[in-house]
Amino acid sequence: MTHKIAILGASGYTGAELVRLIAGHPNLEIVALSGERKAGMTMAEVFPHLRHMDLPALCKIEEIDFAGIDLCFCALPHKTSQEVIRDLPKTLKIVDLSADFRLRDPAAYKKWYGNDHAALEMQQEAVYGLTEFYRDQIKGARLVAGTGCNAATGQFALRPLISAGVIGLDDIILDMKCAVSGAGRSLKENLLHAELSEGYNAYAIGGTHRHLGEFDQEFSALAGRPVKVQFTPHLMPANRGILATAYVGGDAQAIWQAFSAAYADEPFVELLPFGTAPSTHDVRGSNFVHIGVAGDRIDGRAIVIAVLDNLTKGSSGQALQNANLMLGEDETEGLMMAPLFP
Amino acid sequence: MTHKIAILGASGYTGAELVRLIAGHPNLEIVALSGERKAGMTMAEVFPHLRHMDLPALCKIEEIDFAGIDLCFCALPHKTSQEVIRDLPKTLKIVDLSADFRLRDPAAYKKWYGNDHAALEMQQEAVYGLTEFYRDQIKGARLVAGTGCNAATGQFALRPLISAGVIGLDDIILDMKCAVSGAGRSLKENLLHAELSEGYNAYAIGGTHRHLGEFDQEFSALAGRPVKVQFTPHLMPANRGILATAYVGGDAQAIWQAFSAAYADEPFVELLPFGTAPSTHDVRGSNFVHIGVAGDRIDGRAIVIAVLDNLTKGSSGQALQNANLMLGEDETEGLMMAPLFP
Amino acid sequence: MTHKIAILGASGYTGAELVRLIAGHPNLEIVALSGERKAGMTMAEVFPHLRHMDLPALCKIEEIDFAGIDLCFCALPHKTSQEVIRDLPKTLKIVDLSADFRLRDPAAYKKWYGNDHAALEMQQEAVYGLTEFYRDQIKGARLVAGTGCNAATGQFALRPLISAGVIGLDDIILDMKCAVSGAGRSLKENLLHAELSEGYNAYAIGGTHRHLGEFDQEFSALAGRPVKVQFTPHLMPANRGILATAYVGGDAQAIWQAFSAAYADEPFVELLPFGTAPSTHDVRGSNFVHIGVAGDRIDGRAIVIAVLDNLTKGSSGQALQNANLMLGEDETEGLMMAPLFP
Amino acid sequence: MTHKIAILGASGYTGAELVRLIAGHPNLEIVALSGERKAGMTMAEVFPHLRHMDLPALCKIEEIDFAGIDLCFCALPHKTSQEVIRDLPKTLKIVDLSADFRLRDPAAYKKWYGNDHAALEMQQEAVYGLTEFYRDQIKGARLVAGTGCNAATGQFALRPLISAGVIGLDDIILDMKCAVSGAGRSLKENLLHAELSEGYNAYAIGGTHRHLGEFDQEFSALAGRPVKVQFTPHLMPANRGILATAYVGGDAQAIWQAFSAAYADEPFVELLPFGTAPSTHDVRGSNFVHIGVAGDRIDGRAIVIAVLDNLTKGSSGQALQNANLMLGEDETEGLMMAPLFP
Repeated sequence: MTHKIAILGASGYTGAELVRLIAGHPNLEIVALSGERKAGMTMAEVFPHLRHMDLPALCKIEEIDFAGIDLCFCALPHKTSQEVIRDLPKTLKIVDLSADFRLRDPAAYKKWYGNDHAALEMQQEAVYGLTEFYRDQIKGARLVAGTGCNAATGQFALRPLISAGVIGLDDIILDMKCAVSGAGRSLKENLLHAELSEGYNAYAIGGTHRHLGEFDQEFSALAGRPVKVQFTPHLMPANRGILATAYVGGDAQAIWQAFSAAYADEPFVELLPFGTAPSTHDVRGSNFVHIGVAGDRIDGRAIVIAVLDNLTKGSSGQALQNANLMLGEDETEGLMMAPLFP
Repeated sequence: MTHKIAILGASGYTGAELVRLIAGHPNLEIVALSGERKAGMTMAEVFPHLRHMDLPALCKIEEIDFAGIDLCFCALPHKTSQEVIRDLPKTLKIVDLSADFRLRDPAAYKKWYGNDHAALEMQQEAVYGLTEFYRDQIKGARLVAGTGCNAATGQFALRPLISAGVIGLDDIILDMKCAVSGAGRSLKENLLHAELSEGYNAYAIGGTHRHLGEFDQEFSALAGRPVKVQFTPHLMPANRGILATAYVGGDAQAIWQAFSAAYADEPFVELLPFGTAPSTHDVRGSNFVHIGVAGDRIDGRAIVIAVLDNLTKGSSGQALQNANLMLGEDETEGLMMAPLFP
Repeated sequence: MTHKIAILGASGYTGAELVRLIAGHPNLEIVALSGERKAGMTMAEVFPHLRHMDLPALCKIEEIDFAGIDLCFCALPHKTSQEVIRDLPKTLKIVDLSADFRLRDPAAYKKWYGNDHAALEMQQEAVYGLTEFYRDQIKGARLVAGTGCNAATGQFALRPLISAGVIGLDDIILDMKCAVSGAGRSLKENLLHAELSEGYNAYAIGGTHRHLGEFDQEFSALAGRPVKVQFTPHLMPANRGILATAYVGGDAQAIWQAFSAAYADEPFVELLPFGTAPSTHDVRGSNFVHIGVAGDRIDGRAIVIAVLDNLTKGSSGQALQNANLMLGEDETEGLMMAPLFP
Repeated sequence: MTHKIAILGASGYTGAELVRLIAGHPNLEIVALSGERKAGMTMAEVFPHLRHMDLPALCKIEEIDFAGIDLCFCALPHKTSQEVIRDLPKTLKIVDLSADFRLRDPAAYKKWYGNDHAALEMQQEAVYGLTEFYRDQIKGARLVAGTGCNAATGQFALRPLISAGVIGLDDIILDMKCAVSGAGRSLKENLLHAELSEGYNAYAIGGTHRHLGEFDQEFSALAGRPVKVQFTPHLMPANRGILATAYVGGDAQAIWQAFSAAYADEPFVELLPFGTAPSTHDVRGSNFVHIGVAGDRIDGRAIVIAVLDNLTKGSSGQALQNANLMLGEDETEGLMMAPLFP
């Protein structure tokens, strides 16, 4: 059975990545693509790498007849997304890739994003889209909120450890290295090749990155008490890939065992042999997460390193994984392609 | 029906690329992987990006029982390949990715490669593996010789024009820009990140690159007279992608029409609208070729630009395309994945 | 004696490069820096890599008192430059880095740039700034027009050959590979790291690049007859460096000899041993030009390859070289720093 | 007065960087360059970017007459260096860039490097070469041991804080991002462009990196008690630049003040305004260090970020800075060039 799919915001990177992934899915058919500023253009004009595909042209959202659509991916900017989704048919299945429905607490939302939420009741309805940890709820959900890409990476590195009680909760440090596509197709000087290649820098320093809202919500719920991590992202001269280096207190072997138990049956999570460091090179273009654990010469200290592709597992791949569950498809359908290396 | 596959030389880039592609093919099963120096290692150790796959460990060639194998990809170094293939069972279907069986004339082989050929009769038997132009012969072939990656790119840019008689034959210039993975997993100073990134240079200048042997053979056969092109490759700070800029005499519109006719039904060749320049960004990781044509302010001069991914369409993707034909599979099976962008 | 210097348009790459170079010049002092949109900001805010220098803040042009200034570098956008320079004091020495005064023929200017020139008499006065070939005129000039970066590279590769009559004039092809900083600090999608890194493409195909105006003017004047080259630029995933591959008819040894004679005493031009290919890696950040020559297997065909750093020798370094001559300084002062490798 | 200089190990990156820097120094003259495997070659052959310079050819060490040499830079591999330096004239001033004389305690040396030291008494004599903190001792030293590049970066980020007592000593975490030139001109697969570009990974995880020996020695001496930091390096797809992100307990404003006091008169250390993140882009090719400080939403936690160019301030620039002091030159001579951006 073929499911009919719309992608709103198809002229950005996560939109294009959805198209790439759906191209390899046997049971999904893209019937509508929106792009406000580029409406009327073909996808071949906006993304020449998709030229070989038979795709609808970009249109405006109001031109889409949602009656014939089974599931809608929403890859719109933050804040725009909630306003659009609020007005979509209430029977439409939706996977949102923006930040708008990630936080369940309206106050937390306002704190991190600065505005009142325009669709409060849907904020309550939305299921958090980290598939491996919300699988059952996602299966029955109508609206799933895709996670932040940093937030996903950090949670893969820490959730099983918090659940298993094998690490301290008050001194967790997440040093994150993030590829530039996470910033989207934004025209900013620091994202130009001339200014980004061949160097790197931290940003959003001082505990100000919005993905902290997700960490707080999720880790605190898991622990049953407030958990605040220290999190600093760094912008890397690379297009895809996030690497989280988590510094934690705990026994490294117990940490490895907790991962081994938690991820044993996960099709997309690979735990490396103890003491092995994963690399973003090894997950590029794929839906896989690689996790490594090592101890330290200082007793009781350990590091956990998690890597994933921010556009795939951190965003559009995760979204398709969730859509598969919502549509009754096999969770891995269209997502088992091997990473691209070199 | 599942075909059993062996890959000789699986520890190099083209070997790993074959594994990546075959992972997406429903009817091929990898049953043996050889790697002389790394025999005994798992593929996860040699290529961690393939960790999620259930693959045989690397072994030595002599450990492989070819009786149960339907087709063997041979991704060995030049010269080694002919010696190995010579001794394989004569009933085994083989796709060779080395240069050893590309040239049909033993003298030409010796001229460009410096040694006498060790398997002369097989050199005669081998079919040249540029699928789009040798499709019928490949279907019935036992041994197919994969083309050089530069040679493939140049031929996509020029064969239909020579066949249609729309360009001059005596002043063809091919300026080639080649990504570094074309040099293989070779430990050379100029291939180090520190020495290659952020710059570029020509190499094999003066008409000395071995792929000239293929151009001479193929273009002369097509034209029915000797054709010698001037060809200069340049090493680019990128991992995948070849861009051929062909400078030719001829009417640009007639050239575009010749391509349009020649490639109309080709699943992997995309002719861009007249005057549009293709980019290697738009074919990365895929089996597609993009071709652009433009005139010049100088009457009677035109440029043709062809791009492809050297590891995929220029090597391992082409090899799988040929294997599909040899095995009675659909030619495009396992090869329709969209390019990875960004 | 210290010369007082103003830089107009100091918030762009060529402006910042001028500051970098002047920092190493013992006899120049920067007394004014303009940047219209960033007026009021310090250079440390606009270019943190210049933080250690004691520099005036950015101001608007009208705030500058030109009475105390000996020489003004004008790194403004095309068309703006002519309007600003028209109104500067007529006694002020000026080195313009824009395209506005490169073409001497008003009709040629209009053809390539699309508008009537706003300072026609100054267009006649301006001396073309390719130092090695206009040295004597530059010494006495008040207004010097810096060359295009591609135009400079192509001329280093061809001028001595046209002058010496050792190449044919009707089949010259210039295949140019250009780093992205040549496009300036422009916010365009194709200049983003995510879209440029790891790939390449031709642009301005079909003989439409504006630097053709310079080639036509200069080569025709040298030859004493019209000379039209075929020129195609390609955008490279690198920040600095231009590589020109010139395909010419002629004897390669005679070509090498012509270069050897022409450049024997040039402090910034290095002719490589015959048959050696230069690399942009070897001139990065410097004012040097490297030139290589090779023959071809086709008799009577040769290639010439020239490389330089577009921001230094192709723009700001050339500008300082010219300023040195105009101010009576040693031509090489502040310009002999070695390239940065790796 | 001109000082005569020899560089041992001139065929590696730090050797070439020394040549680049000395080229801009008015009072140093290179009279001998050694390179064991490349003896007999010219520097233009080994490093074409130095082609314009008039340099001695590479020779073997035993061919050098040290009688006429004032100072010798030793850029040899670890372990080789101690054996060579042991046998050099005892009156020769030496700046060693290897790890051999960094650790004063023979047991610590053996622990981190695995072998007994071959020149124990010189190990005692050597002065640790972090100029800003050992200036007076370096002025009178005969043998100065250049620091590790990571070790230098981490110490710029932490020494003033330990001295001022403004941070806790038991929970310091150093997350380091290191450019590939720090690995030298080594032929290893993971240093190839094809395997390093576009991705990143941690290495030497688990507290095993040798630079920990330097941290332990220096921080413990400063604090007057054992200090052990947790340090994890990450390999970056860039050629130059180290970024240290230090996670510390302490008041962020007090930290900023401590830096402000400590570095007020340092010509090469730039403290950024509070809350500003430095970037490796802004120090490339220069001898500058940029330092930024920020607090966190968690009270009492702060981050310090320090960046420098590993080949310049982290190695060869530091070496020249020390040589200047040892030779009675101005400390900054030849080192004030601005960074290269973009």
